[in-house]
Amino acid sequence: MRQSHFFCKTLKTNPKEGDAISHKLLLRGNFISQLASGVYSFLPLGLRAHRNIEKIIREEIEKIGGQEVLLPSLQPKEIWLKTKRWDEMDPPLFRVKDRHSKEFALGPTHEEVITGLVKLAIQSYKDLPVALYQIQTKFRNEMRFYGGLMRAREFIMKDLYSFHADKDDLEKFFNKAIGAYEAIFNRCGLKAIKSEASGGIFTKENTYEFQILSEMGEDRILFCENCCWASNLEVAEVKDGGKCPKCEKGKLEKRNSIELGHIFRLGSKYSETIGLYFKDKEGNEKPVIMGCYGIGIGRLLATVVEINNDEKGIVWPKELAPFPIHLIQIGEGQDVKKVAETVYSSLMEFGFESLYDDRQDKTAGEKFAEADLIGMPCRIVVSERTIEKDCVEIKPRDEVKAELVRIDYLQQFFNSKLKVQNSKLQP
Amino acid sequence: MRQSHFFCKTLKTNPKEGDAISHKLLLRGNFISQLASGVYSFLPLGLRAHRNIEKIIREEIEKIGGQEVLLPSLQPKEIWLKTKRWDEMDPPLFRVKDRHSKEFALGPTHEEVITGLVKLAIQSYKDLPVALYQIQTKFRNEMRFYGGLMRAREFIMKDLYSFHADKDDLEKFFNKAIGAYEAIFNRCGLKAIKSEASGGIFTKENTYEFQILSEMGEDRILFCENCCWASNLEVAEVKDGGKCPKCEKGKLEKRNSIELGHIFRLGSKYSETIGLYFKDKEGNEKPVIMGCYGIGIGRLLATVVEINNDEKGIVWPKELAPFPIHLIQIGEGQDVKKVAETVYSSLMEFGFESLYDDRQDKTAGEKFAEADLIGMPCRIVVSERTIEKDCVEIKPRDEVKAELVRIDYLQQFFNSKLKVQNSKLQP
Repeated sequence: MRQSHFFCKTLKTNPKEGDAISHKLLLRGNFISQLASGVYSFLPLGLRAHRNIEKIIREEIEKIGGQEVLLPSLQPKEIWLKTKRWDEMDPPLFRVKDRHSKEFALGPTHEEVITGLVKLAIQSYKDLPVALYQIQTKFRNEMRFYGGLMRAREFIMKDLYSFHADKDDLEKFFNKAIGAYEAIFNRCGLKAIKSEASGGIFTKENTYEFQILSEMGEDRILFCENCCWASNLEVAEVKDGGKCPKCEKGKLEKRNSIELGHIFRLGSKYSETIGLYFKDKEGNEKPVIMGCYGIGIGRLLATVVEINNDEKGIVWPKELAPFPIHLIQIGEGQDVKKVAETVYSSLMEFGFESLYDDRQDKTAGEKFAEADLIGMPCRIVVSERTIEKDCVEIKPRDEVKAELVRIDYLQQFFNSKLKVQNSKLQP
Repeated sequence: MRQSHFFCKTLKTNPKEGDAISHKLLLRGNFISQLASGVYSFLPLGLRAHRNIEKIIREEIEKIGGQEVLLPSLQPKEIWLKTKRWDEMDPPLFRVKDRHSKEFALGPTHEEVITGLVKLAIQSYKDLPVALYQIQTKFRNEMRFYGGLMRAREFIMKDLYSFHADKDDLEKFFNKAIGAYEAIFNRCGLKAIKSEASGGIFTKENTYEFQILSEMGEDRILFCENCCWASNLEVAEVKDGGKCPKCEKGKLEKRNSIELGHIFRLGSKYSETIGLYFKDKEGNEKPVIMGCYGIGIGRLLATVVEINNDEKGIVWPKELAPFPIHLIQIGEGQDVKKVAETVYSSLMEFGFESLYDDRQDKTAGEKFAEADLIGMPCRIVVSERTIEKDCVEIKPRDEVKAELVRIDYLQQFFNSKLKVQNSKLQP
């Protein structure tokens, strides 16, 4: 993508808005734009990072057997009355009326809809288990929004729902889902802590949250540095400064954290309310046992930026970067331009779509500052100085030292240093 | 994908619901499920077809320079008041209030939002042209819905907006967009007619619709069979039965049609209202000239089914089929099972993700009927009869005759008959 044509207008300094560094950097780097409080547009750079997270999530969720569906936002009042959540939901539902005065909720979550949908397809134990997920826009009528994408009122969520004949089968899948979540957060460059949590309005059974330690976080967890056991302060039966109930060695500390994912054993709460039953091997009718598993993708993206930045800007983990390579042409001589164009085409042939700074009206300083701000993992510079030696200069975003690489050795360089996978640089 | 695990429960006969054959077939084949009038869930089969259309649209729109963004559904009342569309929009807006009593529209289209967004980025003629598009959920508070996905209240649309320094530049892009639209509809297996149309609430300037002739369609066009000139009856300055104004030979006929796309020269209507100005080469401030270009993806999907079906079910065009191949195992002998599994793995290695009917509790008749109903382009059967000859039986969905192909010749068969492109069969 030629930067001369790319829709991205960065700011030279951090904006006043933004209560988190990730919020400031995402605004300043023109990844997102605010339309209203807690309501954001994704610009090309931001959408590319978002899509990369979606791709990771799809891969990991499909590995454990999740099948993708897409459910509506407009959800009839009746199904929310059935589960009593029309009035109890917290934050309260966004409600809307149609021209026939019928009321709808804008879906903040999809237990009601998916349970009704699966009810149409499940008769017997032979039809179970089933795991369905979607990557879809949620609406939550929050009183307070913070941190840009950290808590928005409209955001894209991955929600997975699983359906089982009994608790043992749920337990098996629950553990697979924990594995998938760990893989997702790892691939996003984050170390998530599995923390005991409360089910809130969803369920009274124990649930887990995946938390990232961060001063920016609004959650409070008790955390054991020794064994990484953690519990949300809301449900913890132990105290700050007390001994870890798991390893019995570590001291528990109260820490701020960001909740990235939440997984629930729903049991038969929704299946009994909505009437999702199946016939077991003996022909007895039983309620289906359910689990549900959410990840807010915008919050995950913001958290990645919150954790991965330096004084110059964002440092994208390789799998999430909007472009794997930022190619920068310095100087306007015909020779430099010609070589830069050749390198740009070659990278494309090697399977890398680079962001190519071909702009004539920017100084070297401006180009470097912007490259550091938007944070692609690998910077390649073509200048008079490098082409004299038939070289380009390559610098990873998270290293200080640059390296001269011969242009005719570029392909071998990438082959040896990096594996090409799905057009993304992999370590 | 093994059908024994695939979430898809088809019906043996057409459902009573559905006022179009496409609606009945999409419900019966378990591609979609109705949640409320005009509100549908996409099940795995339907979502796969939808995603294939999205992929085609992205490819063709990016070829003409469109860059993808994602804009919110929650749109503040103020921006709709500015363009006077808060009250004038037809169908009326879905409106929603937040906890601070602020009003929002659920976006039925995004001229207001994108014009405001682009305003933040455009100062000079050097920043133009720009073309931004999204694939995003729209909400339209229709009085009447019909044909399932044909006119829904919540649906996914591709909306593209272009921004230019003058009318000539808009005209250039407008023609490119017409080309992209033709390419999109061709790849979806449809012959679209470019028809003169009214701009409705969007603009008073001439606009074009892309129409498909179909008795199911709610639009009425005057159509010349001789030169394919067409005009929406609403704006036609000629009469049914009259002479074609273009070729001056053909007789005009009134025909029903389905509107698949609509492209508008917006001119400076929105830029002037919202204040999107730029400085030209002489330093004069001028309003940006805009165009907008929509395709309702659900309606396109339904139209494809409306046009491509027979008495047995859907006949998917190759690029849109949820799976390129439906592999069917007939008989439960160990030999048949073993060969079918090998063929399944081989197809995967050749780059085809097939739907594999490995179910033990279905008769051959049931399997064939379901395969015809859901309509994958290529059926491969493994049975006692075929494995005796070390063969499989291959039948295209739109042909009557099947062909025996030796298993060790399968790869050559696909290489010679078909090009593999993006894991989809191409003719």
